[in-house]
Amino acid sequence: MELDRAKGTREIDPKDKLVMNKILSVITKNFELYGFMPLETPTLQRFDVLASKYAGGAEILKETFKLKDQGKRQLALRYDLTVPLCLYVGLNPNIKLPFKRYEIGKVFRDGPISSERFREFWQCDVDTVGSYSMIADAEFVNIVFKIFNELNMNVVVKINNRKILDAIMKYADIKDSSSAILSIDKLDKIGIEGVKKELKEKKLTNSQIEKVIEIISISGNNETKLKKIKSILGENEGVKEIEELLVYCNGKFEFDISLARGLAYYTGTIFECFLVNDNVKTAVASGGRYDKIIGSFLDNKQEYPAVGISFGLDRIAVALKSEDIIPVKCFIISIGNTKLESQKLAEELRSNNIPVCLDVIGRGISKNLDYANSLNIPYVIFIGEDELKKGKYKLKNMNSGKEVMVDLNDIVKELKQE
Amino acid sequence: MELDRAKGTREIDPKDKLVMNKILSVITKNFELYGFMPLETPTLQRFDVLASKYAGGAEILKETFKLKDQGKRQLALRYDLTVPLCLYVGLNPNIKLPFKRYEIGKVFRDGPISSERFREFWQCDVDTVGSYSMIADAEFVNIVFKIFNELNMNVVVKINNRKILDAIMKYADIKDSSSAILSIDKLDKIGIEGVKKELKEKKLTNSQIEKVIEIISISGNNETKLKKIKSILGENEGVKEIEELLVYCNGKFEFDISLARGLAYYTGTIFECFLVNDNVKTAVASGGRYDKIIGSFLDNKQEYPAVGISFGLDRIAVALKSEDIIPVKCFIISIGNTKLESQKLAEELRSNNIPVCLDVIGRGISKNLDYANSLNIPYVIFIGEDELKKGKYKLKNMNSGKEVMVDLNDIVKELKQE
Repeated sequence: MELDRAKGTREIDPKDKLVMNKILSVITKNFELYGFMPLETPTLQRFDVLASKYAGGAEILKETFKLKDQGKRQLALRYDLTVPLCLYVGLNPNIKLPFKRYEIGKVFRDGPISSERFREFWQCDVDTVGSYSMIADAEFVNIVFKIFNELNMNVVVKINNRKILDAIMKYADIKDSSSAILSIDKLDKIGIEGVKKELKEKKLTNSQIEKVIEIISISGNNETKLKKIKSILGENEGVKEIEELLVYCNGKFEFDISLARGLAYYTGTIFECFLVNDNVKTAVASGGRYDKIIGSFLDNKQEYPAVGISFGLDRIAVALKSEDIIPVKCFIISIGNTKLESQKLAEELRSNNIPVCLDVIGRGISKNLDYANSLNIPYVIFIGEDELKKGKYKLKNMNSGKEVMVDLNDIVKELKQE
Repeated sequence: MELDRAKGTREIDPKDKLVMNKILSVITKNFELYGFMPLETPTLQRFDVLASKYAGGAEILKETFKLKDQGKRQLALRYDLTVPLCLYVGLNPNIKLPFKRYEIGKVFRDGPISSERFREFWQCDVDTVGSYSMIADAEFVNIVFKIFNELNMNVVVKINNRKILDAIMKYADIKDSSSAILSIDKLDKIGIEGVKKELKEKKLTNSQIEKVIEIISISGNNETKLKKIKSILGENEGVKEIEELLVYCNGKFEFDISLARGLAYYTGTIFECFLVNDNVKTAVASGGRYDKIIGSFLDNKQEYPAVGISFGLDRIAVALKSEDIIPVKCFIISIGNTKLESQKLAEELRSNNIPVCLDVIGRGISKNLDYANSLNIPYVIFIGEDELKKGKYKLKNMNSGKEVMVDLNDIVKELKQE
């Protein structure tokens, strides 16, 4: 046996896991504020369900972990939380609509790895199933701002609408729209000239390219952009939806004509959310409206309109990593024959909701101080026999080095304040 | 494709998942109060690590899901959180001791299924690695009481010590101790006569059986039992540890001479925690001290003393199931041309930390009331055009049926109180 982890996996150390838990608690609190409720779907799925025509497609299937149970059933580990959501809706035909759920769970992909890309990772999805209303779409934009505001992170939300992209394709008379849209989506990375070059390589005519460039060159604020777009494309359902969304979101997002994302998937609103001043241009949340997926997956006649967003937990955690969360406020060191008293004091402080550790190895003072330092514990209490008789303890502030003689009430007051 | 879930898996519906999340939040809060920090280990593990001699053993290995990645590496899904903890300690030789961590994660077992037994389920482990002190053991007893107290559940904690069981075997001159201890462990279920019968079947002599029965028949309170045990077995390390533990726990547990649990595993304290008045006699938390496992697993010279406890999330959730958690306080129904205002009101209430939903389908009043009822939402607000002009809303209490005309402040006050 080689004592090692599986390729592409990692442990999340307490320090990082505390950050992740903090993010999750802010996220779930806000999801529930908007009436989304938690759902848990299984990690293990039937292979044929994950491999179905309307699920993730060939590329993702190649990266799907396959396995069998003892009954030789073909199983697989889920690669996302959307297919399990479709399955859940299919298995619960009497589900009350709108069904507003969130799910935070691990997904698995047997693909290339890197320092930021693992074979198991968290996804954090929130979706409304059963509503065509832009109020539903707006809730995700508003949630995004609430969450990142509470995390003290500045974000910009970029929004487009699939129907506008379709109208651009029609205006430019482009048949192979998916390929052209893929190039348009790269505007932020490769610029206007880059897009032009790609479209040329894709054998579009000069007239087609000109029309695409005419539209994606439109600049200005949301109002200006929408006005210009309308003057070129005429009345457009996608533009109307963006305008309605702006009202529900107090104009808080940036309309971005070139934004496309997993284009085959989305039918309306498309969102992507970036950190301001982030040099890594990775979205920290993204999603959109996918009115056709659930129904087609279920292969029944009913259409289940749906819209949702997925938060990139790992990216957010990396951006917040500098933050030190200090869960243990105080470490108690017993000096002389005061072991029982130090244990009682620890319990007393815990009863006051103060997270406390104490020496359970019986080491010397300096080793105990090293240990407290290594965990960034801000206070140490020494319990000595003489002081104890007077009901006093020595409280040391580990940052300033200052030591004071205090009684229990003082300790509770000081540590609660901290 | 058959639209179905994998055998032995299930979804956890929002109603049940809310209960589970409530339990988890109480559990983690108390873990952190005692200075335990979250660790996350991978679900995917190397097969050879899970199959190693000192890991779970042959029986559990038969139930281990095996799979391969694209590089043909032999992998497996973890079946517990203890082996990954051992691996973590092994991969981090400079880890600061005591290492106090908790982990809440899914584990997988390809075994027989039932209505309460699934092939993927949550485990919730909390352990201290690196201390021989009974203060460490006592923390788990105290945590158990804190957690169940906060969940309004009455529990009894039963405790034994492996060293006492060993001393009983020595006293009765029994060589095949594991087999005899297995029978003793059944005392609660099969009674004294049942244990006697089993030991006879196991070919123990009358004198051996008499000595075992002499000890496991000891009754009375903790003090009486300990006194009698000492008078028969003489001075005993296990008894001393129980006595020390009683001091640190204010005598809060029940010393149970017959308690054994996974006997090969434990080296000292053994705990099991049951709900009072629970007709299903399943432990809701259990654990013990296992000083030899980590070191032997790592195959190095260092011994890592360890003690911990595991909470049976599913059992606790079943026991709490009757509880209805109502996450959405209020549902808003727009009447006439007030869609935008209903959306603004929803955002306003959310800014006041009141979880709110609103109609996003545009249904009629009675369908909306049915929907609010189906989600157990306690209040409904109607926004009509006329009332809106006066800055008033109609607030309906869904339990009493009472309707009142109120302004925004009244609503916030009423819903915050609720």
